[in-house]
Amino acid sequence: MQALVGIIMGSDSDLATMRAAAEVLTALCIPYEMDIVSAHRTPDKLHTYASTAEQRGLQVIIAGAGGAAHLPGMAAALTVLPVIGVPISATKLEGIDALLSIVQMPKGVPVATVAIDNAANAGFLAAQIIAASDPVLRERLHDHRRTMRDKVAQQSDTLQQESQH
Amino acid sequence: MQALVGIIMGSDSDLATMRAAAEVLTALCIPYEMDIVSAHRTPDKLHTYASTAEQRGLQVIIAGAGGAAHLPGMAAALTVLPVIGVPISATKLEGIDALLSIVQMPKGVPVATVAIDNAANAGFLAAQIIAASDPVLRERLHDHRRTMRDKVAQQSDTLQQESQH
Amino acid sequence: MQALVGIIMGSDSDLATMRAAAEVLTALCIPYEMDIVSAHRTPDKLHTYASTAEQRGLQVIIAGAGGAAHLPGMAAALTVLPVIGVPISATKLEGIDALLSIVQMPKGVPVATVAIDNAANAGFLAAQIIAASDPVLRERLHDHRRTMRDKVAQQSDTLQQESQH
Amino acid sequence: MQALVGIIMGSDSDLATMRAAAEVLTALCIPYEMDIVSAHRTPDKLHTYASTAEQRGLQVIIAGAGGAAHLPGMAAALTVLPVIGVPISATKLEGIDALLSIVQMPKGVPVATVAIDNAANAGFLAAQIIAASDPVLRERLHDHRRTMRDKVAQQSDTLQQESQH
Amino acid sequence: MQALVGIIMGSDSDLATMRAAAEVLTALCIPYEMDIVSAHRTPDKLHTYASTAEQRGLQVIIAGAGGAAHLPGMAAALTVLPVIGVPISATKLEGIDALLSIVQMPKGVPVATVAIDNAANAGFLAAQIIAASDPVLRERLHDHRRTMRDKVAQQSDTLQQESQH
Amino acid sequence: MQALVGIIMGSDSDLATMRAAAEVLTALCIPYEMDIVSAHRTPDKLHTYASTAEQRGLQVIIAGAGGAAHLPGMAAALTVLPVIGVPISATKLEGIDALLSIVQMPKGVPVATVAIDNAANAGFLAAQIIAASDPVLRERLHDHRRTMRDKVAQQSDTLQQESQH
Amino acid sequence: MQALVGIIMGSDSDLATMRAAAEVLTALCIPYEMDIVSAHRTPDKLHTYASTAEQRGLQVIIAGAGGAAHLPGMAAALTVLPVIGVPISATKLEGIDALLSIVQMPKGVPVATVAIDNAANAGFLAAQIIAASDPVLRERLHDHRRTMRDKVAQQSDTLQQESQH
Amino acid sequence: MQALVGIIMGSDSDLATMRAAAEVLTALCIPYEMDIVSAHRTPDKLHTYASTAEQRGLQVIIAGAGGAAHLPGMAAALTVLPVIGVPISATKLEGIDALLSIVQMPKGVPVATVAIDNAANAGFLAAQIIAASDPVLRERLHDHRRTMRDKVAQQSDTLQQESQH
Repeated sequence: MQALVGIIMGSDSDLATMRAAAEVLTALCIPYEMDIVSAHRTPDKLHTYASTAEQRGLQVIIAGAGGAAHLPGMAAALTVLPVIGVPISATKLEGIDALLSIVQMPKGVPVATVAIDNAANAGFLAAQIIAASDPVLRERLHDHRRTMRDKVAQQSDTLQQESQH
Repeated sequence: MQALVGIIMGSDSDLATMRAAAEVLTALCIPYEMDIVSAHRTPDKLHTYASTAEQRGLQVIIAGAGGAAHLPGMAAALTVLPVIGVPISATKLEGIDALLSIVQMPKGVPVATVAIDNAANAGFLAAQIIAASDPVLRERLHDHRRTMRDKVAQQSDTLQQESQH
Repeated sequence: MQALVGIIMGSDSDLATMRAAAEVLTALCIPYEMDIVSAHRTPDKLHTYASTAEQRGLQVIIAGAGGAAHLPGMAAALTVLPVIGVPISATKLEGIDALLSIVQMPKGVPVATVAIDNAANAGFLAAQIIAASDPVLRERLHDHRRTMRDKVAQQSDTLQQESQH
Repeated sequence: MQALVGIIMGSDSDLATMRAAAEVLTALCIPYEMDIVSAHRTPDKLHTYASTAEQRGLQVIIAGAGGAAHLPGMAAALTVLPVIGVPISATKLEGIDALLSIVQMPKGVPVATVAIDNAANAGFLAAQIIAASDPVLRERLHDHRRTMRDKVAQQSDTLQQESQH
Repeated sequence: MQALVGIIMGSDSDLATMRAAAEVLTALCIPYEMDIVSAHRTPDKLHTYASTAEQRGLQVIIAGAGGAAHLPGMAAALTVLPVIGVPISATKLEGIDALLSIVQMPKGVPVATVAIDNAANAGFLAAQIIAASDPVLRERLHDHRRTMRDKVAQQSDTLQQESQH
Repeated sequence: MQALVGIIMGSDSDLATMRAAAEVLTALCIPYEMDIVSAHRTPDKLHTYASTAEQRGLQVIIAGAGGAAHLPGMAAALTVLPVIGVPISATKLEGIDALLSIVQMPKGVPVATVAIDNAANAGFLAAQIIAASDPVLRERLHDHRRTMRDKVAQQSDTLQQESQH
Repeated sequence: MQALVGIIMGSDSDLATMRAAAEVLTALCIPYEMDIVSAHRTPDKLHTYASTAEQRGLQVIIAGAGGAAHLPGMAAALTVLPVIGVPISATKLEGIDALLSIVQMPKGVPVATVAIDNAANAGFLAAQIIAASDPVLRERLHDHRRTMRDKVAQQSDTLQQESQH
Repeated sequence: MQALVGIIMGSDSDLATMRAAAEVLTALCIPYEMDIVSAHRTPDKLHTYASTAEQRGLQVIIAGAGGAAHLPGMAAALTVLPVIGVPISATKLEGIDALLSIVQMPKGVPVATVAIDNAANAGFLAAQIIAASDPVLRERLHDHRRTMRDKVAQQSDTLQQESQH
């Protein structure tokens, strides 16, 4: 099945964080591909990956990176597909370096930045983007919001019962 | 013509920054609407605005805010449309407060955050999202990238000529 | 007994931090209620909770939140009761994100912000607010200050004795 | 008329910022007093001021300070009245020093901290606290919220009309 | 023997950090006293302690504090003896709150601030101050510098031997 | 007259800030010398200056520096006289770089750090150190505190009169 | 004459800052070339520029960038020549974003980072690198150090004369 | 064999971090020496070490330091050899203090700063500098880049195989 989302990261040490994006996409039935692509160690692979992403049928790229974190921004420079950046807390600065490096892009080349280490939200944002032309997916997103709401209700009930004892 | 993008901000003092988003959309021939909607001063208007955005035909919401900057996140909580957040440097902290408040959203409710004061990039990101189902728009985005490239070439030429004198 | 303070938080993962507020109120004999209310996952519940708080007889709302931390500010937008915000260190940024998001509210909608993770102080501040019209409670607050003073005296004695050996 | 709110600051250079608190209280018909009290230059005056505030009939103290900003915390140590702290951007660090110094109070002695330089919000918060036992004042606060809402509506109208031309 | 240095801290939880100051003074044969004095919990004890320090024969005060960290600055406001402040990493902000609160004192009331958690250096600084009128102590300080130099030489030798194998 | 305080700075661009230290010393009748000594441009001059300071009769060194700001720490490494460091806001980072570079000294070599750009406080701190063996100077310091107190009283009177009109 | 240093920057708005590097190289008689090369707007030009730099005879690349500041790191990924990065204060964050983005490079691909906006030092560092195989240039660098030392001596003399009047 | 790189650090507690530089140099067959040299505890040893480095045949100095971190900058002041600085996360501030202290050097005395704790990159940068006049070494650097690229390819293969199961 044609992958709609490409999830890339600079090293397999980022996998533990980035799998959450894949899990969200799986849960929402969105086909994706996942690969190791490093801006600094494999700039040519990045060039090929990002500049052919559109013609290969991808609709969104999710790129996770820590430290200097150039992967999302360089991907964004090489495609007009929306690129979602996930800052990873891979250094002693706990992700503030990656956040600033990913979000502070210059005019004309945005990266849609999500919270530090929050790859799940990159998955949700990708789904919200794809849902624009996919009413079934959009309904699944509404379902998920209802599930979140119900989970709070359940936590609330547990708390109330507990406080009565 | 049906607006595809809704640009909102908390106060007319944000207009000077947020107009750049409108200008990009205009240049790319994407119909938009623009309004003042404050999370803190008009929470009910925000509720109505965001929760009806999907049925009104919007495909993306751009929300700009400074300081505590709750507008983008609260809009995102009330719709499954992609919400793009623009942190505005409205306080002495120069936008770092707004950036953290906008980007650090919890699991399930992402805000696609762009650079501080970079409303133009919110416009470009909205266009990239809409272009998923609009090949003509996507071509316009490729044109814009070429224009950016040409502008660098022109600056480069000017610099070379200047340095020969 | 009519709750005078409402303690809310976005998730049951915040309970470990927020229980300290409840314990202070219990110690000061101030009736309270506690619930899970999420600005992002249950915006409608938050709307109902905050906008009816005054008529339900609450005098103060304590809201704890981490990350983007919109709960205190959105509660404050929906009531004229004093809202006390507790920034929780729930992300890699250790609460500085929550602190800025909670404290940097715009003109007209303040949140009374206390220290990061210091839910106990939210309890004390709520008590100080309620004590304005409750002389017995105010005396209990004076008692507590004496207790704190005595505890320092006791620590001081222990230190002096220890240093003489 | 008996002052209900005491506004203090460490130097007359803070007056330009702190007057906004007084203006809000005046608009809401709340009697207040205003004085220069420095934690570092007049510690004895601060001691007297804060420790007698309760018996003098004050219900809230508003303290503004920049830099090391000890005034709000030391006032809070000397009274059980609620103390509202206003961090002032008086140094090259633009108020982040004052914010941390004011908000990070230890257990038992809270300061209700508002946004950097936002003395107006200290006024509103004081009013919200006093309104607990003053239904007329509470109604005035609701009026003010309506006024804020109307102002947004007006800005919205202006923006719509402007964009039609 | 008459104490020349007073070491104070706000809570016995600061003892683990502050003992290093005492150890340095002991090693340099400088008599000291140590006590728990809290700016926020025992403001009157602080007032008495600091304002009588000069007549009691103290020559330097060392004050350690975390979080809002008002102890050093308030001691400095109540005496003209030199006050050395030790920022303690007692909160999630790892001492940056205490550092700014201690160092950013206003004109006329300095606190001699040392590194975060570096109570040993407060001891050395106190010794350097007292040594102005104590040639024997000054010689001991020169001895200590030689000891530090020798320790580096020893580490250097170990490293060289190790690298030859 | 024998200088008791040496004021040094890395460049004459720091003079505008550092003159405040000299003015305080002049007002307190403490003889001082002032010179340009750069840790990076004149390391040998710094070596001579600091290592001979004690035998030349100086009792305190005040060193002001911006950016990497190594001057105070390197002076402290070359003498056992107390060294007071003044972080100067000479770069885009507004002195936070200089503050951290000056205050975070390792065990054994303290720098007594004062607030960013607050050279006046370096002067006061030097005076407080010298006053240990100079009762006349100590009395002058008490006088100065009274003057500060009176100035607040005067500001207070002006404010009260003004508010009665 | 064969350029030994390539100075690149992302936009002609960076020229005002980066010219200082060229001026240093000119003063030290080191041939250089200067061009506009944008990581985000002209990724292909950057690819060509950096990957052919070695064979074209460059010995060092100086790259200046603000905001997300990917230019130095991406150049470093495409060559084994030393790349010097100059963080430019082009955004509201005053260069701290560019500094972190440039300096926090992953293992294997260093960027030699200099101070914010300090393009002159990039020029000096390039000269120090080239001087390894150029004794005449190294002597010029020693001359420059002497000039710096003499300038301090001159400033010192001016200050001493001034203070005698 | 003549050492070309001198690796220095202020204490043997820095060895665990700095060994990575030595390992890179060993792998690239570049002779080096390693020593403990403290700017604050052994300023004279530093003076001798740095000012004689050039005549002893060193081509690059690598200096690692935490906290106030003056070692790299002071070495740079005493030689015209390129000095590479490694900020070490030795304090509660996790290396941001060392980073700013090392990188923010004044005009004329650069330090080539690498990422926090990234001593390996100091080794690579030293090799890139030396390679200017050593074609064999340069080829080794190209080999290393190929190895890095191959490692990503291998990680990529592993990920693809894993995801097919």
